[in-house]
Amino acid sequence: MRYKVTVAYDGHRYAGFQKQVNAKGIQSVIEHALEKVMKQPVSITASGRTDAGVHALGQVFHFDGPETIGTRGFYQALNTLLPKDIRIKKVEFANDDFHARFSVQYKHYDYIITNERDNPFIEHYKAVIWQTLDVDLMRQGAKILEGEHDFTSFCNAQIDPRKPRVKTIFKIDVQPKGQDLVLSYFGNGFLRYQVRMMSAALIALGTHKITLEQLKEILEAKDKHACRFNAPAQGLYLVKVGYKTFDFMEENRENNEA
Amino acid sequence: MRYKVTVAYDGHRYAGFQKQVNAKGIQSVIEHALEKVMKQPVSITASGRTDAGVHALGQVFHFDGPETIGTRGFYQALNTLLPKDIRIKKVEFANDDFHARFSVQYKHYDYIITNERDNPFIEHYKAVIWQTLDVDLMRQGAKILEGEHDFTSFCNAQIDPRKPRVKTIFKIDVQPKGQDLVLSYFGNGFLRYQVRMMSAALIALGTHKITLEQLKEILEAKDKHACRFNAPAQGLYLVKVGYKTFDFMEENRENNEA
Repeated sequence: MRYKVTVAYDGHRYAGFQKQVNAKGIQSVIEHALEKVMKQPVSITASGRTDAGVHALGQVFHFDGPETIGTRGFYQALNTLLPKDIRIKKVEFANDDFHARFSVQYKHYDYIITNERDNPFIEHYKAVIWQTLDVDLMRQGAKILEGEHDFTSFCNAQIDPRKPRVKTIFKIDVQPKGQDLVLSYFGNGFLRYQVRMMSAALIALGTHKITLEQLKEILEAKDKHACRFNAPAQGLYLVKVGYKTFDFMEENRENNEA
Repeated sequence: MRYKVTVAYDGHRYAGFQKQVNAKGIQSVIEHALEKVMKQPVSITASGRTDAGVHALGQVFHFDGPETIGTRGFYQALNTLLPKDIRIKKVEFANDDFHARFSVQYKHYDYIITNERDNPFIEHYKAVIWQTLDVDLMRQGAKILEGEHDFTSFCNAQIDPRKPRVKTIFKIDVQPKGQDLVLSYFGNGFLRYQVRMMSAALIALGTHKITLEQLKEILEAKDKHACRFNAPAQGLYLVKVGYKTFDFMEENRENNEA
């Protein structure tokens, strides 16, 4: 029986989602807990990796396990066995052809910026930018990045050259919330470091370090060295992995409820 | 020149405020940073201790230092030298007779309870109570604890027997905020563990483990063994140390602004 699991984690103590040889990856921690429940080695397949220090509110993975344990059984056993900074939100039965990575229709990432100078609780949870940000200009920049593009300029130089770099961003929201500014990205897929590099570029725009024209040039360069900017991992959250066609209206509704 | 400093800290990595022999206390970390600024050993005097894992939004301490460095100088130097989970909020010049402990008029503590089951970010920051809480009953219980009382029943059994146990609680607010319930205590002083033990007793009341009559009996027993309840440190925040007479209206205003 195939199980689909939604998991949230505080990434700051981990070396990322993926299994690591010399550092603790979230995947290994979950597999270790599942092994205790199923009394046999088990592999999980996630929607994708998240990097060291990146958080998730709704990462999704699948695995195959006995029907007898059931969704409630796995939910309770995993939340008992896992450390408190990895919490299972939901366990569902899935069709056999459901695949946590290949079935993805879209992902929603948030990047959280704050101008709080002296808050001792945010070190691992927000990116601190003290300068005033030109939100209107950042919204205009977001429009440039929306749509189908080759995002080579916004990816890790080490990326596998055989992987496609053309992705579609359905929507980027730039939304002030109290002292924070939340950049929300909805896209059919993102390259490694893409959200952080786009966020850093939008911050550079918002602090008038680059112009709209320069942002456009960076995108159009399709050059791994075109974007000099990267934003720290701690501001990044994988909010949701969508397995239905992206629906602008529904996402707006969900965001307003949250 | 006497300096008055307001400091916020995330207490979860520390063994409490006070200097410790074998564990890291927040006071030592601050004194170590001050020593680097003043190039000589320096002692700070705080409004009081906070226990291991307890947080502060507005702890206050004083120390004597050269006027030449100034409030801005200390503010910037300390925030540069201190770890990110200890942040200086404000540095002020104080009169020579200002004393961070003896001049205290009141303290404001918050105890944060949540019923969130599967949030990976709250382990060190909120007390998780899954049962439904009878908020009205807790408010009635709070009224019993308000006023001037001998709070021996709500203190650590190891407390110094020579210390006075009569304290005045000006006000206790029981306020739902989303999925949280915030217990706010305003008093002229609190015994060690008092806020956590009162919070635990109010939770016992709110989950119908004890009655209003029993809460009253515990208070009136003036017996260190009368209260079997204690609530975990991670929900506790020292919000403010007041050096002016407690003003009900002003505190309401500040809370609504926050």
